[in-house]
Amino acid sequence: VYRIQDLIRTKRDGLELSDDAIGVLIDGVVDGSLPEYQAAALLMAIYWRGLSPRELSRWTDAMLHSGQVLDLARLSLPKVDKHSTGGVGDKVSICLAPLVAACGAAVPMISGRGLGHTGGTLDKLEAIPGFDTRLALPRAVEVVQACGLVLVGQTGDLAPADRKLYALRDLTGTIESIPLIASSIMSKKLAEGIDALVMDVKLGNGAFMKSAERAAELAQTIIEIGRRAGVAVSAVLSDMNQPLGREVGNANETREAIEVLQGDGPDDLWQLTRLLACEMLTLCGVASTAEEGDDLVSHARASGQALERLRQCVTLQGGDPRVLDDTARLPRAREERPVVAQADGVIARIETEQIGVAAMRLGAGRQRLEDAIDHGAGLTMHVRLGQQVSRGEPLATLHFNTADRAADAMKLVQQAITIADASTDPPPLVHRVLR
Amino acid sequence: VYRIQDLIRTKRDGLELSDDAIGVLIDGVVDGSLPEYQAAALLMAIYWRGLSPRELSRWTDAMLHSGQVLDLARLSLPKVDKHSTGGVGDKVSICLAPLVAACGAAVPMISGRGLGHTGGTLDKLEAIPGFDTRLALPRAVEVVQACGLVLVGQTGDLAPADRKLYALRDLTGTIESIPLIASSIMSKKLAEGIDALVMDVKLGNGAFMKSAERAAELAQTIIEIGRRAGVAVSAVLSDMNQPLGREVGNANETREAIEVLQGDGPDDLWQLTRLLACEMLTLCGVASTAEEGDDLVSHARASGQALERLRQCVTLQGGDPRVLDDTARLPRAREERPVVAQADGVIARIETEQIGVAAMRLGAGRQRLEDAIDHGAGLTMHVRLGQQVSRGEPLATLHFNTADRAADAMKLVQQAITIADASTDPPPLVHRVLR
Repeated sequence: VYRIQDLIRTKRDGLELSDDAIGVLIDGVVDGSLPEYQAAALLMAIYWRGLSPRELSRWTDAMLHSGQVLDLARLSLPKVDKHSTGGVGDKVSICLAPLVAACGAAVPMISGRGLGHTGGTLDKLEAIPGFDTRLALPRAVEVVQACGLVLVGQTGDLAPADRKLYALRDLTGTIESIPLIASSIMSKKLAEGIDALVMDVKLGNGAFMKSAERAAELAQTIIEIGRRAGVAVSAVLSDMNQPLGREVGNANETREAIEVLQGDGPDDLWQLTRLLACEMLTLCGVASTAEEGDDLVSHARASGQALERLRQCVTLQGGDPRVLDDTARLPRAREERPVVAQADGVIARIETEQIGVAAMRLGAGRQRLEDAIDHGAGLTMHVRLGQQVSRGEPLATLHFNTADRAADAMKLVQQAITIADASTDPPPLVHRVLR
Repeated sequence: VYRIQDLIRTKRDGLELSDDAIGVLIDGVVDGSLPEYQAAALLMAIYWRGLSPRELSRWTDAMLHSGQVLDLARLSLPKVDKHSTGGVGDKVSICLAPLVAACGAAVPMISGRGLGHTGGTLDKLEAIPGFDTRLALPRAVEVVQACGLVLVGQTGDLAPADRKLYALRDLTGTIESIPLIASSIMSKKLAEGIDALVMDVKLGNGAFMKSAERAAELAQTIIEIGRRAGVAVSAVLSDMNQPLGREVGNANETREAIEVLQGDGPDDLWQLTRLLACEMLTLCGVASTAEEGDDLVSHARASGQALERLRQCVTLQGGDPRVLDDTARLPRAREERPVVAQADGVIARIETEQIGVAAMRLGAGRQRLEDAIDHGAGLTMHVRLGQQVSRGEPLATLHFNTADRAADAMKLVQQAITIADASTDPPPLVHRVLR
């Protein structure tokens, strides 16, 4: 029998918790026997002292097994997923999952909702009329078996310890801890029953991790958790100093992702999707070389097989499959307004987080988890870093249904985009890949 | 309006909380609007990052004003108190308060109960038949006005924020924080409405602070809180590498304190009491020099005036005043058993905390706050550091009512006392005085 305050003291003093003690703590979170004040003090001590690789592995495993896991044992395909730390305009999952499924891997993807300046895959998908992201786990397994992918949210049964701890972290100033972020991500991803995972760690002024060091530390931490759990993990550190693609919102982002699968869409979105798909295929063994992976991915797109997989998935999850052929069926805001350049010059800097906040103000995002989303609202970026612009040229177009939200967002977007005289090199799309 | 998680983040990141924010936090503790999990995370962040002198001053003031304070405005005498960080055999308050009162200062002393290896003044006083330590504040004021001293416990009205935070600290591994210890002590002491305070910071293997550095840091912290609150504070760092006096328990400690006022009692107890009394008298202005203070103190003892003050206090607080003349009226355990020296030699080391634990096991102390005390139980030390002993000579005598407790305590005391061949210098009674 442990005295919980002694376990808190152990971590407070920078010592390691035993495997057994970690089990007791996580069990206590789930069954409610650990008072929230003791959990809160422990979280702050972990924020301060961190968790050793062994502790972190045990902590993640205990959270993972606090609930149910996807049972994909009957599926002989390699199972692989991608997780992004979140950015602005990041709709990659919607085109990536069907691409990888079309190449012969299974993608049981459990995604999140948008909060603050970042959007969430579930919100974007729910812009498709009828699309249900709240499948029970057995139904989610059926969908993967039928079409090679599923796009759902975290149910109550999945890693309940993580849900409780996350809510507590949010209220106690202990969100920004690398071991706690890493274990939260991995407890959910490992519950998918995957063989391999590619992390897309966003880096730049629109990411949660503003520094390259912190982003690399998170990537290494997740790779190490994967290693100890027997899941191959690699991490792509991709740029988030400007929105990914042109669209920021929900329905408009889904449309852009569909366009990528139609062989269209902006180049940066396609290039990152392609690179991540290739990484997933080599990591899970579907492709033995990057070249082979790249060929598979290009073929899956060009042949329309990837689009077909998404159509199957949308259908199986109750959505209207006609949006795949006619994206005009996606909701669209009633009004739009341009933000124009105030001077001639070159796009030198984009405050990406501020662009995300502007989209949120227009109705595309939520400040608190309980806020509602306006799926048709958002904005379209017309410029990228390093691009030449002339005074009066549109920088972005705002889409909205409630006019009183536009003025505020307009000012935010205007201020977020810096036009300078001299040209500077735009950042690379991908900074590093860690394996 | 503050978001509490942002205030926690501020402290977590090592930044300062505003006066206003500290007020909101402490108010929230008292009225229950601050969830305990947020208070717990904040306490751990404070444990980690500390509090600046300004924050600490505000934090203490907010706790102090979370409840009522003693209203001694009608009393023209200087008001002074002493607080000890706790040790083994520390019955100083019982002889010190009446001595200082007899010299012309008022001593409104609010004391605590014993916990773990240390005793508490309230428990020792309650060994006097009928003695009531739970006076309401207005009655406590009357007693000080009548006899110059009162010896009571913390009521529910006094610094309720401290009581709530202390209970939370106990359960969240955040007890051992110097700013939190200092503010807890000072919020209660300042609520006494005193002009001056002498801290007796115990130092050694029977003290909470095992290192001289930590003890000095606590002393300096408390002096600084006092300075900002306009209360003169000095700190005596006294030795706790052996029990103070000979008696460890409750009734036996009260008897020993009475003996000091009768002109008797062990020398170390008298010398420390005298030094603390002298410090209190000079600090509050009753004496202008240490010599004058010392003369006053010696006279108060020799004349019997100090004993008379204690008699008045005991009477006013409902106790049987006959114990002052006949200490045999104090409860006494039915059985006793000696612990004898196993070898010839010199007393080289006494594990003082272990002596305290032995007394607790005999029934003199409590492991948890809700445990009951056996006032007659305890032990008498017959040896001090540096003393020569012969094999078979008694080192200590155990006093107990339940025989099954004696064996365990006997072993603890035996192991706690080290007899060596060579003599080493015993520690000084007082290590330093900080003003």
